Amino acid sequence: MTETALHPYRTHHCAALRVSDVGTPVRLSGWIHRKRDHGGVLFVDLRDHHGLTQLVVGPSSPAFAVLERLRVESVVTVDGEVVAREAGTVNANLPTGAIEVRARGVSVQSEAAELPLPVAGEAEYPEEIRLKYRFLDLRRERLHRNIMLRSGVIASLRRRMIEQGFTEFQTPILTASSPEGARDYLVPSRVHPGKFYALPQAPQMFKQLLMVAGFDRYFQIAPCFRDEDARADRSPGEFYQLDFEMSFVTQDDVFAAIEPVLAGVFEEFAGFAREAPWGVTKPPFPRIPFAESMLRYGNDKPDLRNPLIISDVSAHFAQSGFGLFERIVAGGGVVRAIPAPGTAAMSRKFFDDMNEWARGEGHAGLGYVTRKGGEFGGPIAKNHGEAGMVALYDALGLGPDDGCFFAAGKEAAAAKLAGHARTRVGEQLGLIAQGEFRFCWIVDFPMFEYDEEAKKIDFSHNPFSMPQGELAALENEDPLSIKAYQYDIVCNGVELSSGAIRNHRPEIMYKAFEIAGYTRDQVDANFSGMINAFKYGAPPHGGSAPGVDRIVMLLADEPNIREVVLFPMNQKAEDLMMNAPAPVSDRQLRDLSIRLNLPAKG
Amino acid sequence: MTETALHPYRTHHCAALRVSDVGTPVRLSGWIHRKRDHGGVLFVDLRDHHGLTQLVVGPSSPAFAVLERLRVESVVTVDGEVVAREAGTVNANLPTGAIEVRARGVSVQSEAAELPLPVAGEAEYPEEIRLKYRFLDLRRERLHRNIMLRSGVIASLRRRMIEQGFTEFQTPILTASSPEGARDYLVPSRVHPGKFYALPQAPQMFKQLLMVAGFDRYFQIAPCFRDEDARADRSPGEFYQLDFEMSFVTQDDVFAAIEPVLAGVFEEFAGFAREAPWGVTKPPFPRIPFAESMLRYGNDKPDLRNPLIISDVSAHFAQSGFGLFERIVAGGGVVRAIPAPGTAAMSRKFFDDMNEWARGEGHAGLGYVTRKGGEFGGPIAKNHGEAGMVALYDALGLGPDDGCFFAAGKEAAAAKLAGHARTRVGEQLGLIAQGEFRFCWIVDFPMFEYDEEAKKIDFSHNPFSMPQGELAALENEDPLSIKAYQYDIVCNGVELSSGAIRNHRPEIMYKAFEIAGYTRDQVDANFSGMINAFKYGAPPHGGSAPGVDRIVMLLADEPNIREVVLFPMNQKAEDLMMNAPAPVSDRQLRDLSIRLNLPAKG
Repeated sequence: MTETALHPYRTHHCAALRVSDVGTPVRLSGWIHRKRDHGGVLFVDLRDHHGLTQLVVGPSSPAFAVLERLRVESVVTVDGEVVAREAGTVNANLPTGAIEVRARGVSVQSEAAELPLPVAGEAEYPEEIRLKYRFLDLRRERLHRNIMLRSGVIASLRRRMIEQGFTEFQTPILTASSPEGARDYLVPSRVHPGKFYALPQAPQMFKQLLMVAGFDRYFQIAPCFRDEDARADRSPGEFYQLDFEMSFVTQDDVFAAIEPVLAGVFEEFAGFAREAPWGVTKPPFPRIPFAESMLRYGNDKPDLRNPLIISDVSAHFAQSGFGLFERIVAGGGVVRAIPAPGTAAMSRKFFDDMNEWARGEGHAGLGYVTRKGGEFGGPIAKNHGEAGMVALYDALGLGPDDGCFFAAGKEAAAAKLAGHARTRVGEQLGLIAQGEFRFCWIVDFPMFEYDEEAKKIDFSHNPFSMPQGELAALENEDPLSIKAYQYDIVCNGVELSSGAIRNHRPEIMYKAFEIAGYTRDQVDANFSGMINAFKYGAPPHGGSAPGVDRIVMLLADEPNIREVVLFPMNQKAEDLMMNAPAPVSDRQLRDLSIRLNLPAKG
Repeated sequence: MTETALHPYRTHHCAALRVSDVGTPVRLSGWIHRKRDHGGVLFVDLRDHHGLTQLVVGPSSPAFAVLERLRVESVVTVDGEVVAREAGTVNANLPTGAIEVRARGVSVQSEAAELPLPVAGEAEYPEEIRLKYRFLDLRRERLHRNIMLRSGVIASLRRRMIEQGFTEFQTPILTASSPEGARDYLVPSRVHPGKFYALPQAPQMFKQLLMVAGFDRYFQIAPCFRDEDARADRSPGEFYQLDFEMSFVTQDDVFAAIEPVLAGVFEEFAGFAREAPWGVTKPPFPRIPFAESMLRYGNDKPDLRNPLIISDVSAHFAQSGFGLFERIVAGGGVVRAIPAPGTAAMSRKFFDDMNEWARGEGHAGLGYVTRKGGEFGGPIAKNHGEAGMVALYDALGLGPDDGCFFAAGKEAAAAKLAGHARTRVGEQLGLIAQGEFRFCWIVDFPMFEYDEEAKKIDFSHNPFSMPQGELAALENEDPLSIKAYQYDIVCNGVELSSGAIRNHRPEIMYKAFEIAGYTRDQVDANFSGMINAFKYGAPPHGGSAPGVDRIVMLLADEPNIREVVLFPMNQKAEDLMMNAPAPVSDRQLRDLSIRLNLPAKG
């Protein structure tokens, strides 16, 4: 094969060559990743999307002068021959590490100017520089891998949803403002002066209308838009969710459809962030009633990698020598116990620091009992008495060298403190199982709650979920005892999504709103679109919408969403690379029948 | 199995049951599609996403009274038993046509009010009603099938792109206004008063930055937004394209990557709209230079199902007894011939009508020659003379019973008329091959053209395409002779997309803009984002973006995009179902630092 027959840019990509290619004339293209001059011989790591190949350029090669001169990150096409590396220089960490390419010629595709941030290496750089030069930042290995992970996860989600019988549909992005309108991004209409489209916060209404339209199993990797301030786990502006909905299903059907998708994706990509004896919860995932979760984990998004379980020990302190707890219980409060197993050898400081931490968080404090070789320590144990402590420990299944913390007070506050303490104790004692993705469902959310401020009953969460027991429950039961067919999916303490079996019956919807103090007219005024559609034959349906960004963050083990999104905005909702948002021309404003109404400068 | 063990909604979907299920107790859920009362026995077609099942309800069944009362499109769950239909009543057109379900019980999931448009049947309904009640319109068989086709096509495109080594990435939807800004949808920023985001008209800049960032083969089923007036093949508002881009590639590499994807999808779904001996162009698709296409087909999007080929016959008329054509050719004009094969038996009216049609379209007229058994007819033949006509026919390969039309005038106008005439003649003679998808590439577009109005050279199409011959061509050749690495893909006369090998070298870009009369500063001011990125090492790259909506329209054989989009806006860019666009509250406007600037009422 003559060299003129080679592809103009490359015969192989930069991760392709092996010892079996030795002797082959090749052409490679890529970025100059690193250069090293070893006694007049130039070693160049040439990088492309796929990987690295080492080039060797002797001083007599016509490529030498060019490659010596060029800055790193310049793009070149190199002709050369594959040679085996000497035994001592083989790099086992690199797929191409057994060979190198002896460069004969080079042509320059694009010369790089001096870089605002380096590509090779792991140095931290300020967010502003990274986002402004995102096209350089993305060349860095970690980010490049994360973004490829994201694409792989999304492709896998799609494939698995289709395997489960779902069909992907695109719902509109230019649509109507939601009834509240808060947090909507608005888009002025040119054709209809004074009117606005809105970007969807979620395709909730569209997916329910798809069910009403008779499509059976919808999904979408759906872009959603919320004009909210940034959080670590949510970009300002847009985010993606695996939105899905199904007809003629119960809550269990929804779980059975999505569990293999999530478990499958997590199993497929579990080893991405670090090698480990990975464990992913096998379907069916545990179902934990909301009330049980609040008790045992102190919140509704338990991290099941933490083996600690909170218990209510109020009864133990109903009559106690420890007056504080006795008074709390007598006043309708609760005492919750958080085990601290195997802490016999821990210093008093460990326990006191925990109490200090709780005070620092605004709580009254975190009581504790120590135990060493069966002997209890600390003021609570002393006042409560040996017999009472033994009874309590027996009830909790604690042993002779286990300590225990106590969160006491009004139920909600105590539960919350206990939850935080459970996390902190678990972390400090190294009890959080590493290399695990532990899923669960939180189910049986209350439909209503008592709003202390407004002195009335209101919806706890989503007014459009179906109440368990349907119309009969609303008519006959204490509203505060009614549960909803509403569920969250949680992984490692991260809520991936809320979902529900929807209320598809207008008469049940009117009744539920009536209980929360809304008239039929108010319901019609705010939710006419959905209610009208339900009047022409609506199937029972339900779904959920796990957050794609959060799934990728978990798998990549990245605490900041910026590390798993291609072109994120900064915390101030600015795209520094594209320079958005930006002023527009008067002509554009006029065309849209709007003018600016800038706040007075202060 | 006792009946209480059945799923609450269904044991089977409505297209599942067969003769082998006879005797099985089943539960089905769906919409009442049709009801017929045959002498006191009720026949109900129950419909779900999957299909229809016939229910038989005898007068003694507890289901009878309920089903008799309910309106069509009510949703019910029916318990019954599968029975075989009698031989004479088997419906071979229905997958479940050999059985029916004898209904024992029914529960009502959702009762339908009187419908604003019927679901069963094929009746045409006004667009306004259809779009307002799109959730009902979508229940109709044709639209339901089209939307499922669309989803199938998109899933297939994704699968095939991934098989070709492409990776899907999501580029931002809230981004910056393009340099011209016209046709951008704007989004006011709450956080940055007086500043605006824009929705992308296409992810062009992002996909090129992805190449600069080192990702090798990008694709995306990309939502694009253009504030343009509606056309039959484009929704107002948003549309989707199969956006893709590749690095280190030539034009041929781009073609080789996408051809199997398009050919594969068209082969997969070719039989959707009608059964036919389908033919889809096999890769490699024909490449037709722009100039050749303008000559032979009279446009740059030829319908290759039409076998007629236009020829330039100017030389034949340089000296002719037909003075009109002689004068046109002498004045620098052209004469183009459009064959009308096998028209010996056609009346004079056929030819005259064609001439009338051309005049009606604003042209001077369409000349013609008839021929029957070798004998020419018509004034052109008479004046041009027998010998000249024979020479012309021999040159065109026309036979003794073929007619011929002539379009004469200035080159551009004559080419255009010839193109329209070719289409019309082909259609009227029934020459357009049915059941074919014929692809081609149009290549070698001119880089520049002479702008007669501005009296200067300007870009013909895309200023960012790489000129063939690169910098040397720009420096040494007549600009009007330079071709670009730019290409369109065309199927059956429909342009699916434009694409190009991009100009990734700033020095070539500055030079190309200089030829078109722009200074370096002007280029920097308008295109700094792209040019700056290219300064840090850019790979050669190129791509294209076939329109998804147009692909689905071709496959569904639907002339209006509304029939292949789930929730389209109407021609006035309104979503009648969601009531968008709509007024927003003063509070919302204030939050966004804008106010209305309504045009004075006329």
